[in-house]
Amino acid sequence: MATTSHPPLVLAVDGGQSSSLALVATTDGQILGAGPGGPANHYHEPGGPERLRRAMTDSTLAALEAAGQTPEQITHAVLGMTGAMEQAQALVQELLPHASVHSYHDSVTALAGASVARPGVVVIAGTGAVAYGRLTDGREALAGGWGYIMGDEGSGHDIGINALRAITQAADGRGAPTLLSELVPQHFGLTSLKELHAAIYRSAIDRTQIASLCRVVAAAASRGDAVATTLLANAAADLAHLALTVIERLGQIDAGLDVYTTGGVFQSGRFISEPFARAIERRSPASRVHEAAFAPVVGALFLALQAAGTTLTDEVLANIRATLPRRAISKQSEQD
Amino acid sequence: MATTSHPPLVLAVDGGQSSSLALVATTDGQILGAGPGGPANHYHEPGGPERLRRAMTDSTLAALEAAGQTPEQITHAVLGMTGAMEQAQALVQELLPHASVHSYHDSVTALAGASVARPGVVVIAGTGAVAYGRLTDGREALAGGWGYIMGDEGSGHDIGINALRAITQAADGRGAPTLLSELVPQHFGLTSLKELHAAIYRSAIDRTQIASLCRVVAAAASRGDAVATTLLANAAADLAHLALTVIERLGQIDAGLDVYTTGGVFQSGRFISEPFARAIERRSPASRVHEAAFAPVVGALFLALQAAGTTLTDEVLANIRATLPRRAISKQSEQD
Repeated sequence: MATTSHPPLVLAVDGGQSSSLALVATTDGQILGAGPGGPANHYHEPGGPERLRRAMTDSTLAALEAAGQTPEQITHAVLGMTGAMEQAQALVQELLPHASVHSYHDSVTALAGASVARPGVVVIAGTGAVAYGRLTDGREALAGGWGYIMGDEGSGHDIGINALRAITQAADGRGAPTLLSELVPQHFGLTSLKELHAAIYRSAIDRTQIASLCRVVAAAASRGDAVATTLLANAAADLAHLALTVIERLGQIDAGLDVYTTGGVFQSGRFISEPFARAIERRSPASRVHEAAFAPVVGALFLALQAAGTTLTDEVLANIRATLPRRAISKQSEQD
Repeated sequence: MATTSHPPLVLAVDGGQSSSLALVATTDGQILGAGPGGPANHYHEPGGPERLRRAMTDSTLAALEAAGQTPEQITHAVLGMTGAMEQAQALVQELLPHASVHSYHDSVTALAGASVARPGVVVIAGTGAVAYGRLTDGREALAGGWGYIMGDEGSGHDIGINALRAITQAADGRGAPTLLSELVPQHFGLTSLKELHAAIYRSAIDRTQIASLCRVVAAAASRGDAVATTLLANAAADLAHLALTVIERLGQIDAGLDVYTTGGVFQSGRFISEPFARAIERRSPASRVHEAAFAPVVGALFLALQAAGTTLTDEVLANIRATLPRRAISKQSEQD
């Protein structure tokens, strides 16, 4: 606990695949400063521990500096991480010796942000795809999140791969003609399937870029392309299946749960969101689908505030909304 | 043309992904020697040209040495290659200045081997998946062969990936329980899904090993596992779709074509071969499915013999069968 006479503060960190972000806030939800950091991913690969140290240290110290506050003032910190939870917690504990530090898998902070710390299920569909649900009594369930080889059905990467396959199927005459044959090479500044094939296999187009094809598929669907529309409907069915698996494992098919959606795939519009909502409501009619209210970093902030004894009243939420940096809003769209 | 008084000879080379093989034979089909060589793949990657040179030179010279013959005696040579056809042809032409050298994509030599140089369609399903068809008038069509990212539906790799996904789906409760959850980790000497996940993502299990899961899926199917049976039925449908696309593009749906199957996937047994044959005969009732008669290297030999003016009589085929080295038979099973 802080031994300072300054007002107590909380810290929230989102340690992400492509970047990290920390927020420092008062216990009534006024965000005093935000701090960026590098990626906190792949801890067990070469350079991983040092990368994690920099991501945690840079973002925490930058947020404190932006807030004009000192480490001693932080009483509670919550970290949302894609991995290396224990290591991240130890690093931040070292920086904030007076604070109570907790770290969670980022699906937990994503749900907290999406639902304003209420029970429900969050479906995160970016480069990967995962669903996480939690009830008031603390029961929780996770489905998906197995990565691009062993899973991620319904993810942006999965949609991108299926778009590439739709193009080769069309070229063979195995599949229907599709606008994707023209739009996908164009998206990468290429003019032919041959160039696209060469770029894919010499890894000039990486997994994140393949996942970005989700937007191209959405554009083709909105122009009436039947192949693209089917790809998105299939992805929506896979994502609904993730959510329904979690709802079922939590025993809430009949009672229903609030389902929150977030990530780039859902931003591709109604060709995902409509079949997704229909599939959820067909199997669990009492469940309702909503867009996520806040990004995972705000979910971490909610959990830190609750740990500090704060109730998330309308006033606290208004304070957060009024002081939320643009970076914490846009972080949601690059979520993976 | 050879200017020697020795009897004229032909050379056949199969330049493969994992190894190469050359055969030297008399013009009546007696194989005098076989020569192994390294892989001839990925010409455009670092070390590719030198790897191709070694594969072509080593196998050709080893076959000549095993046969106790000299390069001057070769009048006709045919190469079946997975790529770099022109470069391979130039390399062999350099070794055999007196010979007429031709190179083909290995789907062409695979069909020639499978059908004893008759018209038809060959479906090659190993690590990858491709169908190639050719009519008497020289019209040809190819479908599939797009590689593990953009295609290869129905291949061993595709079956392996779907087996991994079936396991994660079962673990989540998204999919039905399956024997694969136990058999797949076992196959890699691992004891849990967690260990399997770690091994896959640190690339300790490569694409060829993933493709080898096809045998594990076949074993599970033969023990009555419904998930495994469905995986193989889906792969069979994809492979039949490749063949039927080629038959359709050649205008032979009604007239029918002979369809030849080869590669490790078809060796996994009736759970592939039966739904495959049913799907072909449902859409093209006059078509007939056969196992490939010979490996691609023998297809290259057939084409070299025909180029040298030899007719593939029963006597010539008997000569080939009597002198075919075991290596040329087993080469078929590792075909990809």
